[in-house]
Amino acid sequence: MGAPDLLLPSVGPEDAEKPLYDPEILTRLDWSEVTHMKGDVTSARPGDGLCVRPLCKADYDKGFLQLLGQLTKLGDISREKFNERFDAMRSCPGHYYVTVIEDTLLGQIVGSATLACELKFIRGCAKRGRLEDVVVNNEYRGKQLGKLIVTTITLLAKEVGCYKLGLDCKDEMKPFYGSLGYTSEKGNDNTMIIRF
Amino acid sequence: MGAPDLLLPSVGPEDAEKPLYDPEILTRLDWSEVTHMKGDVTSARPGDGLCVRPLCKADYDKGFLQLLGQLTKLGDISREKFNERFDAMRSCPGHYYVTVIEDTLLGQIVGSATLACELKFIRGCAKRGRLEDVVVNNEYRGKQLGKLIVTTITLLAKEVGCYKLGLDCKDEMKPFYGSLGYTSEKGNDNTMIIRF
Repeated sequence: MGAPDLLLPSVGPEDAEKPLYDPEILTRLDWSEVTHMKGDVTSARPGDGLCVRPLCKADYDKGFLQLLGQLTKLGDISREKFNERFDAMRSCPGHYYVTVIEDTLLGQIVGSATLACELKFIRGCAKRGRLEDVVVNNEYRGKQLGKLIVTTITLLAKEVGCYKLGLDCKDEMKPFYGSLGYTSEKGNDNTMIIRF
Repeated sequence: MGAPDLLLPSVGPEDAEKPLYDPEILTRLDWSEVTHMKGDVTSARPGDGLCVRPLCKADYDKGFLQLLGQLTKLGDISREKFNERFDAMRSCPGHYYVTVIEDTLLGQIVGSATLACELKFIRGCAKRGRLEDVVVNNEYRGKQLGKLIVTTITLLAKEVGCYKLGLDCKDEMKPFYGSLGYTSEKGNDNTMIIRF
């Protein structure tokens, strides 16, 4: 046998499976008032061969980034860069809830959405939530996975104490989000941006 | 003399003046392409008796919260709660840039706005900025302080590496933000919310 390999990667199997946030929070979501899911689908019972859980580093090898690539420009993201970003998110507790749906038979991530929280001073030092980066694998459309992941994030925002949850969306997505309880506040529903 | 007071507050003068973020960043803002400020006003030269700087804990006694109260519901925020929230923001480096304008003669905060950043995986692990909680003291209207604080945040977002900066606004505020370079992207300029 040779000398021990001193250049082993710092990410061992244990670290690779470590969730971005405490998965126990997902078990506390209150689905009792959700009426828009057929077949009593919830994050705890998403359907055969499916699992809803926090992102972990191992998802780099389960197509998480390729899935995000269906949403927008992805850019070049090495494993090292991915792990670094994951660690940066994890080092801000209570801020990042990147949540995925895994097809456990294939070991592939087929849906994802993020609850991003912002701490405020207003409203008694409130927390505001934002629904970000919602994406479902094209091949899994029509299986309620969009509704499932968005509703999971909605309930998550309530569970972690957000006073409101917002999202930016295209015209054609308004009916979808409207069907899940999101509303436009008349006269106060504009988003404007500067790109750098 | 009596026994030493063991119940002294943990926030000493030094901690009270510690900025929420490194004020040096403000000195690096590039105002050279800004054309909408009269009299070459910048964050470094905001006008006589005014100073643009990061929030600090001492601002609790300089009317910072009362100013935010002009914006929206403030709720009951004790000094302890304020300090706790400040520390929580400070413990997430690169996330919170609450920036204030102080009337240094009166020792009062007369304007404030926040750059809140969100880390992403998309776009090569990009950072997205949001302009939040913009407020200027009613009595200081007409002194360009709104334009000054918003432009400061815009340049700050660019300086810290945001790929875009967004804001939610009411219909009547669109012309104001439009005049400062913000745009609505046709078909993709809706914000929707759920309140809990």
